Formats: sequence, C-alpha cells, structure tokens
Amino acid sequence: MVGVIGGGQLARMMNEAATALGLRLRLLAEGPDTSAATVVHDVTVGDYTDPAVVKGFAADCDVITFDHEHVPTALLHDLEDSGIAVRPGPEALVHAQDKVVMRDRLSAFGAPCPVYRVVGDADELVAFGDEHGWPVIAKTSRGGYDGKGVFELAGRDDAAQPFEDLRPGVQVIAEEFVDFRRELSALVARSPSGQAVAYPVSESVQRDGICVETTTPAPGLDDDRAVGIQRLALSIADELGVVGLLAVELMERTDGSVLVNELAMRPHNTGHWSIDGSHTSQFENHLRAVVDLPLGDPATRVRWTVMSNVLGGSVLDLPSALLHCFARDRRLRVQLYGKEVRPGRKVGHVTTYGHDLDEVRERARHAAGYLMGADESTGAGE
Amino acid sequence: MVGVIGGGQLARMMNEAATALGLRLRLLAEGPDTSAATVVHDVTVGDYTDPAVVKGFAADCDVITFDHEHVPTALLHDLEDSGIAVRPGPEALVHAQDKVVMRDRLSAFGAPCPVYRVVGDADELVAFGDEHGWPVIAKTSRGGYDGKGVFELAGRDDAAQPFEDLRPGVQVIAEEFVDFRRELSALVARSPSGQAVAYPVSESVQRDGICVETTTPAPGLDDDRAVGIQRLALSIADELGVVGLLAVELMERTDGSVLVNELAMRPHNTGHWSIDGSHTSQFENHLRAVVDLPLGDPATRVRWTVMSNVLGGSVLDLPSALLHCFARDRRLRVQLYGKEVRPGRKVGHVTTYGHDLDEVRERARHAAGYLMGADESTGAGE
Repeated sequence: MVGVIGGGQLARMMNEAATALGLRLRLLAEGPDTSAATVVHDVTVGDYTDPAVVKGFAADCDVITFDHEHVPTALLHDLEDSGIAVRPGPEALVHAQDKVVMRDRLSAFGAPCPVYRVVGDADELVAFGDEHGWPVIAKTSRGGYDGKGVFELAGRDDAAQPFEDLRPGVQVIAEEFVDFRRELSALVARSPSGQAVAYPVSESVQRDGICVETTTPAPGLDDDRAVGIQRLALSIADELGVVGLLAVELMERTDGSVLVNELAMRPHNTGHWSIDGSHTSQFENHLRAVVDLPLGDPATRVRWTVMSNVLGGSVLDLPSALLHCFARDRRLRVQLYGKEVRPGRKVGHVTTYGHDLDEVRERARHAAGYLMGADESTGAGE
Repeated sequence: MVGVIGGGQLARMMNEAATALGLRLRLLAEGPDTSAATVVHDVTVGDYTDPAVVKGFAADCDVITFDHEHVPTALLHDLEDSGIAVRPGPEALVHAQDKVVMRDRLSAFGAPCPVYRVVGDADELVAFGDEHGWPVIAKTSRGGYDGKGVFELAGRDDAAQPFEDLRPGVQVIAEEFVDFRRELSALVARSPSGQAVAYPVSESVQRDGICVETTTPAPGLDDDRAVGIQRLALSIADELGVVGLLAVELMERTDGSVLVNELAMRPHNTGHWSIDGSHTSQFENHLRAVVDLPLGDPATRVRWTVMSNVLGGSVLDLPSALLHCFARDRRLRVQLYGKEVRPGRKVGHVTTYGHDLDEVRERARHAAGYLMGADESTGAGE
C-alpha cells in the first residue's frame, strides 16, 4: 500500500501507473475535488500539515510518497521514527523544500550554482547587488513554486520587496542574475538500493515562472554535454540520498555551461513527456523506486517528443474541446487533470512525438493553444 | 459521465484511459473486490441483471458502456427507451450475446462463417455431424466465454453433451470443424457518427479456449489479406451498427482464407498489446467512440508487439514477483489486474515490443511464465 500525500495532477498520473503495476494507492488530498481525489479509489481528505491527520493516514501504508514538497520536515521525521518508510526521506526532501539548505549543500560538493547569499534585510540585499551587479534574483527559502516566491529586482529601490509578508522562519536568498540562453531539465530516478536511471535531458520553456513547453531531447545539446548533465543529476541524487524522482532544473549559459536552478523530488512537469515518449514514464519509475522495484528504461521511444501545458483560458469544457484537437491530429496524446478551469491554472497537457521537430512542435502548440481558447484563425498558441 | 457495467480488468484499463481524457467514469461492479472496483473512484456494487439496480446506476450517467456482454438485452432496450445512451446499443450488442443471432446475421450479408445449424436435440446434432463430418463443434447460443460453452464432439456418442444443464432460452448451434492454421483477431473502433478505424490484424494463440499470446501484426500475413480482413471487420461493425470496439475473432485456414469465429463488442484480450504498441490504445478508442470524440490512430508504434497473458499459477504476490521481471527486462510493460490469484484465472498481462520478433516473443513468454510460477531454470513459459 503506497500512500501519496497531495491531491494534484502528479498524484493523478501516479495513480494511472500504480494501477498498471497492481499497486494499491491511498491518497491524502487537500479536498474532495482536487485532481487526484476525483479518480483515486481510496481517498482521505485532510490537512497535510496536521500531524494527527498525516499519522493516521500513514498508519495503514507501507510507504509514503508525495505529490508536492510542502509536508513539514519535522512531521516526516516523526513518521520515520514510528517505522513508516518515507520516500524520498526528510533528509533528502529538505533540499527541495528549503532553497538555502539546497544551495549550501550543492555548493559544498561542487555542483555548479549561481553566486548566492542569505540576506537578512533590504540593506544586505542592496550590498549583494552592488557587489555582484543588478538585477538580482531574490527567492524566499520556502514555499515558492511556479514562479511564486521569486523576485527579479532591477535595482536598490526594489530591495524591500522580498521581505514583505515574509512568513516566520522563511529566509531570503539573493542570487546573481544569470543571463541564460535556455532552461534545461535533468530527471533521474533512484531506488533505495542506489540503482538510478537518467532520462534524456529536456529543454523547457517557462513563461511567468510556469513551464509551458518541453522538448526532449534538448535540441542542439551534444552528447558530451548531455551526459555531463545526466551525471550531475545522478550525483546530486546520490549525494542527497534521493529515493524516487529528482528533477534538476538548470540554466544553460551562452557558453554551454549550466547552473542548477531548482530541485524537485517528485515527478515533474518537465517529465510529463515520458508518459508517451519514453519506454518507462517518470510516474512509473517514481513508484518503482518508492516500492523498490528495478527501474525501467528511461530512453526515448521516438526521435522527438514535445509536451505543451494547457493553462486555464476561455475553454471551460476541456473534454468536449478535444473534438477539434483529435479531429486535427490522430496521434495527439492528452492528459486532462479534471480540474476546474481557472485563468493560468495548469489543467492538462498534450504530447506529440515524431521525427520532424518543427512539425511535432506545431502540433503540440496548436492543440494546447486551442484548449486554452486561442483563436484558431490567428495561429493558435504560437 | 460514462457508466461502465462490469468490474473486470477491461473496465480497470478503461479507467486508466478515462483518467487521461478527463472523463468521469462510474462503475457498476459485481463485487467490491473485482478488478476495476478496487481502483475506480465512483463504484456501485450491484447485480447487472437486476433492472432496478441498472436503472438506478444509469440514471446519473450520460452514456453506458460495458466490460462484458452479459447485461440482458431487454434491460438495455429499457434504458434506451428512457433516454439513456447505450453504446454499443442492444440492437448491435445482441450479436455478441447470442451466437445464433450472430451467425444468421453474418451469413445473411455474406461474411464468411463455418457451416452451422441450430440443433434442438442430440439427434439433430448427430444428423449434422453425419452430414458435414465429425468432429463437430457445438456451442451454446448464450453465456459462453473463455472456452466455456464450447464443445468439440468427436462423434455420435458425445452428441448429448451440449444439452446437459442447458439454461432456458439457450440454444445449441452445431458448426463444422474447421481445421484452421491459426487464429487471427481484427479489432475496429466505430463512432456513433460512423467514423471507424481498424487496428492491425493480430495473431492470437489460444490454450484451453483462453487467449495466451498475441503477436501484432500477424506474422506472414501479406498486405492484401490483412487489408481484406480489416475491411471485413469494418463492414461487420458498420452492418451491425456497433459503437465502440468490435473484436472479430477469425480462423485462418491453410489456404489463407478466413472464417469468423466469434464477435466481442468491447475492448478485447487480443487488443491489450495496443496500450504499449499502438498510438492509441483500444481502451482509449473505445471511450472516444462511446463519448463521440474523433478516433485515434490505431497503427503500431514499433515493428512487433507481443502480449502474453498471465494466468494464475503458483505466484500469489504478483507485484513482488515483478522484481525479477523488471531486473531482467528494462523495457517490459506490465498490467496487473489486482485480482486474487486462482489457477488459470487471467490476472495480468505483459507486453514487449521491438524489431526482432524472436527476441520480443522470448521476453514476453519469459516474463509471463515467471509470473505464473514457471521454473526459470527450465525455460520459463516456453
């Protein structure tokens, strides 16, 4: 019995993989209408920050894993102390929960990171900016995702922004502004026994801090660099003792070198392509790692795979809107998350694959654009 | 809201496809521990032959479809009369429920069938055998599946067998014994609007009346014959007004000609390969047809795909037994049905694909054999 904390689309897609493997899955969801809670058979609705709720949920599970990184670290230590397997464990997961812990740890073992400093107030932030140049990227140490908790500060006048409404215990970290060429993502899965596999490196396109498209493998990335990035991700997974999926988001500079941007320890938006484009999806490999089964081949099945996110737009009935998409594209792959459509919300994704990258991209962009309500006559989603 | 009647593995795999398409699925299951009932979110447990149960279940659904063909035809007419969409409808479904109706209809429009006759008693059966030669194949008109309700009668002395324990209203049909070379299966999906797609023809291997392995496309079947078989299946779907999946099981004679053996109007064991081997699985295309979305490409993604059924053997904990299978084969695909293991029961299947048929077959047979408890040292499952 695998317990999953968090009712989002990642848990929803994990559930599809769990069904195939014959694994029983229990869900602790934030509400009855969350993405996974409407499809998982065995659902508990409750607050994942409430120790009584989480401990009660976990008591019947053989192992606990996650849809998100927001469960308090201390609570996960309590679960482990009571003999419940937590994968990834709190010692690893804290690096995806706290950016200060992450930066300090990665820097200590030599993983490439931007220049950074924990800053206690606006004055310290100004000093960092004056020393390393403006703009400065400031991030809150905890609680950020999809662009939230990240600030691009143009100059001294903006230095107070990150400290507004700062929650107790949350720090601000200042980072040099990296003029990167593009973002790359390296996903690896790692078992309790240390077996690990690396997915091909993806290029990801972000808009307003949200992933909108990935291309796998990353175009123009030569084999040496790709292998170097996969090795980096594998070494981080090993160093931190990750069990399950680890996503390493990277910034690629114009000289081809990379810096680690963020870590996530769960299936990741940049790995959704793997459902249709890889021999083993990230969701299946995450579950295999969590229950300690040998990992599956992460290689691509076809030359190019493009995933486009569907963000909430003017189309409210997505299943019906598939009529146009499927009529236009007989090989379009779709995952809808069963969520109420709200502006900008991730409500699904589409995947296309094939041998001609331009054609594969056009198909994905068109379908995602159509599902977001783009006017078809103007070139949807381009 | 799609209502599925029947809690078997076909409903279970439909549910995976429904999740991806963002369709809500409700299940009417025979029991709480049936294959699909343990994974579907919205489950009603009840008797599918009880009009009150079925009508109550269907009242909240936009459309009803099936995991099996056993819902009484009259009851489905009642549902249609009360304004609920039933797909496939009872006028079509009766051809998969009643072999006499099927044979008469197929013969009437020229589909190739064995010589057959409805026989009222053992004497009539003997007369048929004496006229067309022994052995004779006798089948009950209703209620048979997986080899049940089918009798191979060597001679006159066996002629009473099919009439033993015959339920009221059930007829016996005598068919000439066809000395076929192999069995083929042609799957098509058809929409309410008449759009239809044909999967590549599969070769299927049966043992004791149960499908144990399929190979897609059927080896050695030249294009002309394959297209002829696909056309036959499409014409049957059109003639009978099928909505959803239609599986046409065929016997291929040594001269290459084919005869229709059985029809099924639902996803079919011989189409399980399509989950991993086709651009669009039979489960997804069945649902797309049922909700009237355009159908997806049924073509193969790779040269050869082999599916091997896992029948209940000495291995009781199948998820744990995957350890060996996944360690041996990084590209093995698995669907376990979450059913208690009992001897000979269909409890899962494995799928392999690749470019070398011998290698692909060996992998599937090994994995299925291992999961059935074959001794590895002796060449499992061969």
